[in-house]
Amino acid sequence: MRKVDPDKYQAKLHQILEAAVVCFAEKGFRGTSTNQICSAAGMSPGNLFHYFPSKQAIIEAIAEEDRREMSERFAQLAAEPDVIVAIERLVNSLLLQCADPVYAKIGVEVVAESMRNPEIATLFAASEAAIKNDLVALLQRGIVQGQIDATLEPKFAATWLIALIDGAVTRSVLDPDFELSTYTPTLMRMIRRFLE
Amino acid sequence: MRKVDPDKYQAKLHQILEAAVVCFAEKGFRGTSTNQICSAAGMSPGNLFHYFPSKQAIIEAIAEEDRREMSERFAQLAAEPDVIVAIERLVNSLLLQCADPVYAKIGVEVVAESMRNPEIATLFAASEAAIKNDLVALLQRGIVQGQIDATLEPKFAATWLIALIDGAVTRSVLDPDFELSTYTPTLMRMIRRFLE
Repeated sequence: MRKVDPDKYQAKLHQILEAAVVCFAEKGFRGTSTNQICSAAGMSPGNLFHYFPSKQAIIEAIAEEDRREMSERFAQLAAEPDVIVAIERLVNSLLLQCADPVYAKIGVEVVAESMRNPEIATLFAASEAAIKNDLVALLQRGIVQGQIDATLEPKFAATWLIALIDGAVTRSVLDPDFELSTYTPTLMRMIRRFLE
Repeated sequence: MRKVDPDKYQAKLHQILEAAVVCFAEKGFRGTSTNQICSAAGMSPGNLFHYFPSKQAIIEAIAEEDRREMSERFAQLAAEPDVIVAIERLVNSLLLQCADPVYAKIGVEVVAESMRNPEIATLFAASEAAIKNDLVALLQRGIVQGQIDATLEPKFAATWLIALIDGAVTRSVLDPDFELSTYTPTLMRMIRRFLE
């Protein structure tokens, strides 16, 4: 068997996932064929199959990458002593991601497909649960440090913060006037007043 | 020509729209055929055509009904002297709607389709703009009456309140733990702290 260069292998994986994300954003998970992903990635079906046995495996890898990225983001916030500042940084970085139309479209696609396809819902459920747990832990640290109102229930507060990010994605799709740089300061005031 | 009983006509219209909403929630706007709507409404294609010339016309009527219902909701709130109470009542009634799986699914479907189909986006744009305008007017009244923080920009505040409702729809789809009666009190605290 030919020896595989691990760096080249990773680069190829990344290239396939990038191409797949663009296809899924444009046509949805159901509306995209593996052939279309091959074309977008500039490779043959046989070659793609060497990396991913199915479309489902590609979606699974995207969910996994999303989960890993979120986890890294939370790990970085651990170094920030002020929990309110940490949450503002988190929200800002998530809002920036929502401003990317490809990311916003994938976000909406995940919700729309999860609604009708339990397999997709399951693929993204681990990611959902991890974000909620990490945010709950951050809020609990804020309560212990006296920076966050101790009468708030972290699980409920975390959920509404996540709902605000979900809502920012929806607004960016439905409201032609919605523009991050002008709308974000009001969101930050809302979050501070809620938590402090 | 046979004379049409206006009450019967309205009842039939309503029956078609109810059947269409259930189909659209299950299979999406694109995934639903007019034949499927006919079966769900228990009528022939020729008979349906008498009421709606196309699927697009049915979606248009659903958007129009949604706009009219929202407008009535805001009209009722005009009688409430306390603007914060009025907003709490509005949010509560919208959350109750989100708890209906058919309504939540249609909500997600509108976002997902608006993203890829400008015609659908246009159909629901009037509804979107009307809700934002009505909510801005309510917040402005609250500012004039001294119940709402005058340093808030009503347009931005209204948008984030709408984003919270969007987010509640998304949470109800993605978070298996999300349950309105336990999560709502924290949302109400968030809104009060934000606005007062």
